[in-house]
Amino acid sequence: MIKIGIVGGTGYTGIELLRILARHPESELVAITSRKEAGTRVADLFPSLRGIVNLAYSDPSKVDLTKCDVVFFATPNTVAMGEAKALLGAGARIVDLSADFRIKNVSLWEKWYKIKHAAPELLSQAVYGLPEVNRGKIKAARLVANPGCYPTAVQLGLLPLAETDTVDLGHLIADAKSGVSGAGKRPEEPLLFSEASDNFKAYAVSGHRHWPEILQGLEAVAGRSVGLTFVPHLVPMIRGIHATLYAQIAEAVDFQKLYEDRYRNEPFVDVLPGGSEPDTRSVRAANVCRIAIHRPQGGDTLVVLSVIDNLVKGASGQAVQNMNIMFGLEETMGLSHPAVVP
Amino acid sequence: MIKIGIVGGTGYTGIELLRILARHPESELVAITSRKEAGTRVADLFPSLRGIVNLAYSDPSKVDLTKCDVVFFATPNTVAMGEAKALLGAGARIVDLSADFRIKNVSLWEKWYKIKHAAPELLSQAVYGLPEVNRGKIKAARLVANPGCYPTAVQLGLLPLAETDTVDLGHLIADAKSGVSGAGKRPEEPLLFSEASDNFKAYAVSGHRHWPEILQGLEAVAGRSVGLTFVPHLVPMIRGIHATLYAQIAEAVDFQKLYEDRYRNEPFVDVLPGGSEPDTRSVRAANVCRIAIHRPQGGDTLVVLSVIDNLVKGASGQAVQNMNIMFGLEETMGLSHPAVVP
Amino acid sequence: MIKIGIVGGTGYTGIELLRILARHPESELVAITSRKEAGTRVADLFPSLRGIVNLAYSDPSKVDLTKCDVVFFATPNTVAMGEAKALLGAGARIVDLSADFRIKNVSLWEKWYKIKHAAPELLSQAVYGLPEVNRGKIKAARLVANPGCYPTAVQLGLLPLAETDTVDLGHLIADAKSGVSGAGKRPEEPLLFSEASDNFKAYAVSGHRHWPEILQGLEAVAGRSVGLTFVPHLVPMIRGIHATLYAQIAEAVDFQKLYEDRYRNEPFVDVLPGGSEPDTRSVRAANVCRIAIHRPQGGDTLVVLSVIDNLVKGASGQAVQNMNIMFGLEETMGLSHPAVVP
Amino acid sequence: MIKIGIVGGTGYTGIELLRILARHPESELVAITSRKEAGTRVADLFPSLRGIVNLAYSDPSKVDLTKCDVVFFATPNTVAMGEAKALLGAGARIVDLSADFRIKNVSLWEKWYKIKHAAPELLSQAVYGLPEVNRGKIKAARLVANPGCYPTAVQLGLLPLAETDTVDLGHLIADAKSGVSGAGKRPEEPLLFSEASDNFKAYAVSGHRHWPEILQGLEAVAGRSVGLTFVPHLVPMIRGIHATLYAQIAEAVDFQKLYEDRYRNEPFVDVLPGGSEPDTRSVRAANVCRIAIHRPQGGDTLVVLSVIDNLVKGASGQAVQNMNIMFGLEETMGLSHPAVVP
Repeated sequence: MIKIGIVGGTGYTGIELLRILARHPESELVAITSRKEAGTRVADLFPSLRGIVNLAYSDPSKVDLTKCDVVFFATPNTVAMGEAKALLGAGARIVDLSADFRIKNVSLWEKWYKIKHAAPELLSQAVYGLPEVNRGKIKAARLVANPGCYPTAVQLGLLPLAETDTVDLGHLIADAKSGVSGAGKRPEEPLLFSEASDNFKAYAVSGHRHWPEILQGLEAVAGRSVGLTFVPHLVPMIRGIHATLYAQIAEAVDFQKLYEDRYRNEPFVDVLPGGSEPDTRSVRAANVCRIAIHRPQGGDTLVVLSVIDNLVKGASGQAVQNMNIMFGLEETMGLSHPAVVP
Repeated sequence: MIKIGIVGGTGYTGIELLRILARHPESELVAITSRKEAGTRVADLFPSLRGIVNLAYSDPSKVDLTKCDVVFFATPNTVAMGEAKALLGAGARIVDLSADFRIKNVSLWEKWYKIKHAAPELLSQAVYGLPEVNRGKIKAARLVANPGCYPTAVQLGLLPLAETDTVDLGHLIADAKSGVSGAGKRPEEPLLFSEASDNFKAYAVSGHRHWPEILQGLEAVAGRSVGLTFVPHLVPMIRGIHATLYAQIAEAVDFQKLYEDRYRNEPFVDVLPGGSEPDTRSVRAANVCRIAIHRPQGGDTLVVLSVIDNLVKGASGQAVQNMNIMFGLEETMGLSHPAVVP
Repeated sequence: MIKIGIVGGTGYTGIELLRILARHPESELVAITSRKEAGTRVADLFPSLRGIVNLAYSDPSKVDLTKCDVVFFATPNTVAMGEAKALLGAGARIVDLSADFRIKNVSLWEKWYKIKHAAPELLSQAVYGLPEVNRGKIKAARLVANPGCYPTAVQLGLLPLAETDTVDLGHLIADAKSGVSGAGKRPEEPLLFSEASDNFKAYAVSGHRHWPEILQGLEAVAGRSVGLTFVPHLVPMIRGIHATLYAQIAEAVDFQKLYEDRYRNEPFVDVLPGGSEPDTRSVRAANVCRIAIHRPQGGDTLVVLSVIDNLVKGASGQAVQNMNIMFGLEETMGLSHPAVVP
Repeated sequence: MIKIGIVGGTGYTGIELLRILARHPESELVAITSRKEAGTRVADLFPSLRGIVNLAYSDPSKVDLTKCDVVFFATPNTVAMGEAKALLGAGARIVDLSADFRIKNVSLWEKWYKIKHAAPELLSQAVYGLPEVNRGKIKAARLVANPGCYPTAVQLGLLPLAETDTVDLGHLIADAKSGVSGAGKRPEEPLLFSEASDNFKAYAVSGHRHWPEILQGLEAVAGRSVGLTFVPHLVPMIRGIHATLYAQIAEAVDFQKLYEDRYRNEPFVDVLPGGSEPDTRSVRAANVCRIAIHRPQGGDTLVVLSVIDNLVKGASGQAVQNMNIMFGLEETMGLSHPAVVP
C-alpha cells in the first residue's frame, strides 16, 4: 500500500482526489491537511464522502508528511514550491497539482505568476506529468508537475500535429471552453450561479497562464517555436473542457490515421471515428480524453475536437495516473470507472 | 459469474445499469436488446461506454434470454408483463425496473396505468424490491418489482414513522422534487432544455402514478390506511430527488434516535446528524439515500428531508442491490463508489 | 417627473430597479450611490445598461439625496434604518427593499436580525408594502417597507384563506423554492455555480427570517394567531420563487371562486384556471404573481401553487408598484412588460 | 397602426414576436395561425402572455392574411416560399424569419436545404434583412428574408474586416456557440434537458446551413470570394450566441477605431471598449449585438467577440426592426427594452 498525504484537500481537485483514491486498491490515505479546516472531519465538509473517508483535516504545521510515500499538493499556486524541498529531502515523492513546477523557464514563470519562485533549483528535476509525452521520465520522477486542465486538452489535441510537419505550427488556434469548476472553489462574483448560469463568455483573451504552458509543451515536441492563439471561455456547466483546435494544413496526410496511430496504445486517449463530435459529458468523472478530427468541406483547415473532464484527466485523475506510473502500478489502476451519463 | 440480460437498454435506467454493471465483479453481460437499435454497438450510442461495453444491441425477437441468470427490464411500462412468464418458466429471474409488478391490487394498477394487466397471475409472486423493507423476501424472489424513484425516496423517509404511532398518518405530506432524467429519455416538449432549464414547476398535482405505490408501501408497514398528499415538482437538474416530508407529531419521541436505530444496519441509508440539510449532489451517481430530521421552531410538525439519485438508489443501483441479494452476493458489491461532487 | 435616488445599486435588486425604471415614463433617476463603486459608471459595471443608464455611482457621503422625491434602498439590511430619518425629515419618501422596517415588533425584529434596531421610532409609520393588502395605507405612506420575496409569494398564496375560516390556520405549510438570485450577489461558497448548479437542497429549515414576516402578515388579516411551517429550498435557476402551500380544509367552499373573487381587480395577481400548474418562467422578469388552486384526489388537503419572480414582484417591481401608488400614478405604469419565455 | 399577421406562432421565434409586438405602440396583431393549435387561445399555450395577447390561433386555411399590412413567417423552412406569392400579390408585405429567401443562388439553396425551391422567381426581389448592410433596400422591400441567428452574429462581427483589406479573408474562422433555443422547440433527443444540460459539444462541423448564408453576406460586401471555417457548438443555456472570430491580420490598422467608426450610427450594434469580453446575458432579451476586438499578446491574429440574443437580434427583434424600417417608423420603436440581468 502506498502511503498518501494530501496538502490542501478542501478544494475541487482535493475532493476529486479523495473520490478517486477511495476506490484505489493500493492507496492508503494517511493525512490530509487544511489550515482552515484543521480538526474538521472530511466527511463533515463533504457529506458525499460519509462512510468512505474517515479522516479529519490536520493542521499542516502539526502533521509529518515525510512519512508519506507520495504527497499530492491540491493547493493554490505558491504553496508547493515552499514545501517541496523538505519533503523531497525526506524521501517523499510529490505530485503537484498546482502550477508551481510546470514552467521550466523561471523568469517566464515569474512573469505569468507575478511572484518570485521559491524553489527554482527544483525546476530541473521536476517532470511535466503528461504521461502521453513523458511516461518514461515520470517513472523515475521524484517531483511531478501535474499539467493544467486546458494544457492537457489542448496538448493532447495538437500533439500529433506538433510532432509532424503537417500543419502551419506558426498559426495554431485553440478556442477552449471550460466548465466553472475549472476556476476552483473561490467565492468570487463571476463564479456565482446567478452570474455564470444561462450565460457564456470569453475571458483572459489578452493572456492566460495556461498559454505559456501549452506553448512550452508543443515546442518541446515540435523542436521549434510555435505560434498559438488561445482563447478560453466559461461554460455554464460544472465539469468539462472542450477544445476546438484549428490548424492550416501544410501537408494533407491522413489525419485520422495519424491520430489513431499516435494514440493506439494510450489507455486514456480515445480517438473517435471520423465525423464524430464528442461531448464533454462523455468523459464526465472519467479519466479520458476523447478526440475527433474534421476537415470541414474538404478545405485546408483542420479542426480537432478534444474533450476532458477538467477535474479528472485535467487534474486529479491524471495525478493518480502519474502516481501509478511512479510507483510501478498498473497505469489504469483505480481509474477505469465509466463516465457518468446522463 | 452471473449471466445478465437487459431488455431495453437505450434509456437512462439502461445506460445506468450498464455503467454500474461494468464494474461489478460478478456480473457478465450476455445480451442487451433494443428493437430500434438492433445491430448498433452500445458504445456507438453511448460513447461514454467506449472500451467498456463491447456488445451490440440485439433484436429482442432473435436473442434467447432464457439462458440468462437474471434479466433486467429497463423498458417502458407494459413490456415486462408481456415477457415475464416465459422467462420465469425457463428459470431466469427478473428484476423489473418498470411499474408492471409494483402494485399488488390489479384493478388499482389498471386504473392508474390505464391498460389491462397482461400477467395478473404473477403479481402475487412479485416481490416489491425495497430491500430496507423486504430483504428477506427478495432473497427468495424470482420476480422483483424494482420501486419507482419517488416511492423510494418517500418511503425511506417515512418508514420509521409509518412503523410507529408517532405521527398523524392520516395527513402526511410529501412535497417531492425531481431532476429531469426522472421522466426518461422521451423527446417531449416539456422536457426540452429550453423549457425545463431556469424554470421550476409542480406537475401531476391532481394525481401521479407513484402515489398509490407509496400508499401501498406505507400501509403495508403501518398495518392501516394512510392519508398522503403527494406533489411532485420538476427541478432544472439532471439527477436527484429531494423529498420534503411533513407530518403532525402525535407522540413526541426522539425522532433522530428513531431514524438512527431504524437504519443503523442499512448499508445504503444514511441518517445525517440533527440539523443537516442534505443536497441531492451528495448522492449523485451513488446508491445512497440520505435523510435528515427537523422539528422547526420546536413546533408540532416534523420535517423529514430525504434525497436519492433517481437513477441509482431510485432505479438501476437499487436493481443491482436487489440482484446482489437474490444471488447471495455481498449486498454492496459494485455499489460502493462515492458520489460525484462537484 | 419623479426624482429618484437609489442607495446601494450594485446588487441584484439595484440593477433590476434600473432596468425597470429605465422604461418608466414618469421617473427620472438623479443619483445612485455605492461606497465601493463611487465614480464607476453604472454601465461599466452592468454592460447590459450601456446606452440606457448614463449615470455614475456617487459616494454616499457626497450626494444629497434629500432633493429626491423618493429614495429606494437596495441595500443590505441595517443601512436604511440608519439613513431613513434624515431623508424623511427633509421631505423625501422612502421605499426600503431591505428588511429594516418590515417587522412591527422591534424585539422580534432584533431577535431575528441579531442587531439593535437603529430607528424603532419609525416602525409605526412604516407601511408594509404589499399593495394587495395595504393599498390605501401605501398611498399615504412616507416610508414603505417593501416585502421580502418569499413573504410576497406565500402571503399572496394564503391571503384568501387567512381572511376566511375555511382552513386550519394553525397548521399551514409553505414549501418554498427559490432561484439563487434570491440570496443576492454575495460571493459565498454555497452560491457558486459549481455548488448550486445541478443540485437541490433545503436550507434554514430550523428558522428563516422570512418566517416571522409571513406570520405577521397572515395574522394581521386573520385577526388571530397562525401556525406555519416554512421550509425554503434552493433551486438551480437564477430567478423565480415557487411556493407550494398546504392547508387542511375546515370548510369546503369553492376555493377557485374564493381566489378569483379576492384577486379579480388586482392587476398583478393572476388566478389560473383550475388544474393549472404555473411555472416560474411564466413570470420571469414580469411583475406578476400567478396562483393555482388544487384539491388532489378530492381529499381534505388544499394545495395552492404561487409563483413570482423574486426580483420583480418579490422586490424591485413591487417597489416601483409601491412608488406608483404613493405618487398617484397609474399602478401598472412601467410594469406591464410580458415575461421572458423561453 | 400596422396590421400584423403571424404565420406559425407556436415556436420560439413566434412567442418572442408576440412578446415584442405586445409593447410596440404602432402594431396591431390581427391574426396568428397554427394548424395544430387552431382554436387554442395563445395565452393558454403561453401563460406568460395572459392578459397581454387575447387572440386565439386561427386555422391557416380559414384566415385571410391578405388584409394584413405585414405578415411574419415564424415557421419551419419551406412554408413561407409556398405562401409568399399570394400574399405579396394581395399587397401584404412579408418578413420571413425562416431560411426560404436568404440564399440568392437557388441551386445553392436547394443543395443545403435538400428540397426544390417553390418560388425561385421571388428570390431576386427578396431583400436580406440585415439593416446594418441593407437598410436602404429594406425600406423599399416587399419581402424581407430575416437573417439566421449565427449569420447575424458572425456577419456583424466580421463586416468591418470584409469591407476592408485588413485581414486574410481566405482563412477566417468562426467558432460559434449557441444557446439551445436556437434549435427551436422541436422535441428531439439531443435537445432534452438531460442531454444538453451540464454538457458542451460541437455539432454540424462538416457543414451547417448557416455557412453558405454567412459566406454570401461576406462576399457581397468584400466583392470577392471569402474562405470561412464555421464550427457551431451547443451551450447549456437557453438564449444567446457568442461568436469568437479569428482572422490573420494583413494590414495592422487600428481595429478598435475601424469598428467604432463602422458602427457609430448603428442603434443596435455596440462596440465595447478595448479589452472587453461581452457575455451573452448582457444582450439577453434585448435587440443588441455587442462586439469586442482583441489582438492577444500583440500577435498577428485578430480576435473578435460578437454576442447577440439568438431570438431577438438573431430573429424576432431583428424582424421587428425590419418592419420598422419598411414602414417608415422609428427604427428602435418597441425594441429599446434593456437586457434582463441577472
